[in-house]
Amino acid sequence: MTTVRDIAAEAGVSAMTVSNVINGRTDKVSVATAERVRSIMARTGYVPNGPATALSTSRSNIVALIHAASGRRSQPSPHDSIFLDEVERRVTGTGRFLMIRSADDVAQTSAELRSWRVDGAIVLGAFASEADEVQAQLGLPLVFVDNYSTSSRISRVGLDDFQGGLLAARELIGAGHRRLALVAPGVDRPGVIHQRYLGFRAAVAEASLDRNSLELIDCEPFFDPSWELGSALARRQDRPTGLFATADIIAIGLLKGMAEAGVQVPTAASIVGFDDLPEARYVTPSLTTIRQDIPAKAQAAVDALLTLIEGNERPAEVRLPVTLCRRGSVAPAPPD
Amino acid sequence: MTTVRDIAAEAGVSAMTVSNVINGRTDKVSVATAERVRSIMARTGYVPNGPATALSTSRSNIVALIHAASGRRSQPSPHDSIFLDEVERRVTGTGRFLMIRSADDVAQTSAELRSWRVDGAIVLGAFASEADEVQAQLGLPLVFVDNYSTSSRISRVGLDDFQGGLLAARELIGAGHRRLALVAPGVDRPGVIHQRYLGFRAAVAEASLDRNSLELIDCEPFFDPSWELGSALARRQDRPTGLFATADIIAIGLLKGMAEAGVQVPTAASIVGFDDLPEARYVTPSLTTIRQDIPAKAQAAVDALLTLIEGNERPAEVRLPVTLCRRGSVAPAPPD
Repeated sequence: MTTVRDIAAEAGVSAMTVSNVINGRTDKVSVATAERVRSIMARTGYVPNGPATALSTSRSNIVALIHAASGRRSQPSPHDSIFLDEVERRVTGTGRFLMIRSADDVAQTSAELRSWRVDGAIVLGAFASEADEVQAQLGLPLVFVDNYSTSSRISRVGLDDFQGGLLAARELIGAGHRRLALVAPGVDRPGVIHQRYLGFRAAVAEASLDRNSLELIDCEPFFDPSWELGSALARRQDRPTGLFATADIIAIGLLKGMAEAGVQVPTAASIVGFDDLPEARYVTPSLTTIRQDIPAKAQAAVDALLTLIEGNERPAEVRLPVTLCRRGSVAPAPPD
Repeated sequence: MTTVRDIAAEAGVSAMTVSNVINGRTDKVSVATAERVRSIMARTGYVPNGPATALSTSRSNIVALIHAASGRRSQPSPHDSIFLDEVERRVTGTGRFLMIRSADDVAQTSAELRSWRVDGAIVLGAFASEADEVQAQLGLPLVFVDNYSTSSRISRVGLDDFQGGLLAARELIGAGHRRLALVAPGVDRPGVIHQRYLGFRAAVAEASLDRNSLELIDCEPFFDPSWELGSALARRQDRPTGLFATADIIAIGLLKGMAEAGVQVPTAASIVGFDDLPEARYVTPSLTTIRQDIPAKAQAAVDALLTLIEGNERPAEVRLPVTLCRRGSVAPAPPD
């Protein structure tokens, strides 16, 4: 294997000069020398020693994706998979490496990753309080995704969740639905779900509907519990006819559970989802949903992190727009 | 931040002794001393310097997952997402870190990862020829998943794909279907798809059916092309009635495309998928499919890699069983 010394000997320079070229300290090396060293490196297939470079430059070129809440889920969410896939592509595109880590305890995991001199991390799925805690403990550049921490020290990339709730409610109210339900996990905790709930409620108020028109139903964002909930709702005489699920996976479970219990969507009940996962098109009828651009969110997170790593000023908060995507799961409300 | 020297001073030992404890060279340290050093490390919240440890032990505790064929897909496959998720959990559970990397050129990416002194890598989605090339070039412990390289040097973890094809064909033939189709990407290339095809064909032969009963239809493993194919098949008078798709995602596209063009599953056509993704239950009707245990495959791959890393003898090839999972997409063949 080619070493720094081999390259130095061939180029007729010191090992320190080669090291300066490798580590980008080119202000100390003439352009011609740097060029010569690089061409020898390319020709001999020299691969820098990652750990040694990390020690000498305190840059590892490793970026981490910390996936909070792993204990809270049983299978990967399609949303998280698409996000991760795109982050990996973007990070690789910049010549860096991506380390991934699920974490029940975000602070502990961040400390472990710091031991690897990661240059920074993107944190997905942490609660606002966790974000504040992690940011306070670590000097590492961090970007929090879909996080509603109100701390001014947190760098955030997310969506206009409020608008998503608003659009969903208007679609259902516009189709004549007056028995509405929001199906979601923990609407009271500060975060994306709470914002979607606030948006939904704003549209209910805007339409001058009785506040009793809106039922809140708790449901974990997985297929099985939402399928069971769909079956249970189908048996209720006074069931809501216009449902907004704060995740497509919940909407899909509701739709299947209700249909299998004899309540067809959209004739007997209408459902709006959130995310526009590929899965929204697999079901019958295809799902009307609030669309977010997950790859754009991943790109924004990587961009924000690189800005932080490069020591530029803290990037502005990013809040991406959402849109209503009409398919087949909303129809006029059935007669009472 | 606590340093090795701080710990050495407090424990009354040399920095080398502390380093020996950190790096697991405890044969050189008394049990009592090692205990004392560890308790000081725990109390002071000492975090080892990852790159320095990697240099001094030539172990990084980093394992890589190389995801071949990224250029061949437009969105992450649910299969790969579940596999990755489980690999991350298992690797983290052993106290190691997982680096992930998509790769158009597996050999180039492996070399880059080697620069980071990764202890080994799991390679997903590579063709048999790529596996041979990568294994020949690198001295790194490597485990290839779903790979049919015939090289005796390759460590493999996979499925009984032949049996999967056999079970799918028997299910369709048993329901009376005589116009059969196998819908798959590139059945001729050595690999999992080819094995599923061979199994399917063996069942056709076993039932003494005319070889013309089996139509081969090429289709990429994504929703859109399979949906379009479903629409096109629906318009054919002589369309096959018993279809085996070598991936659930193809089966889902076929089912939706045919249904939207007026050919209902399972009354007018039957479909068997492969994988048993969560998505198999989202569609209407739910998908009859060949079930594989993706988390078990991930665990087998991590176990095999750790065996290789720890320098034990090369693990035996793992070939996990598959089973038929009956749901709603197969029914008796319609009358001719």
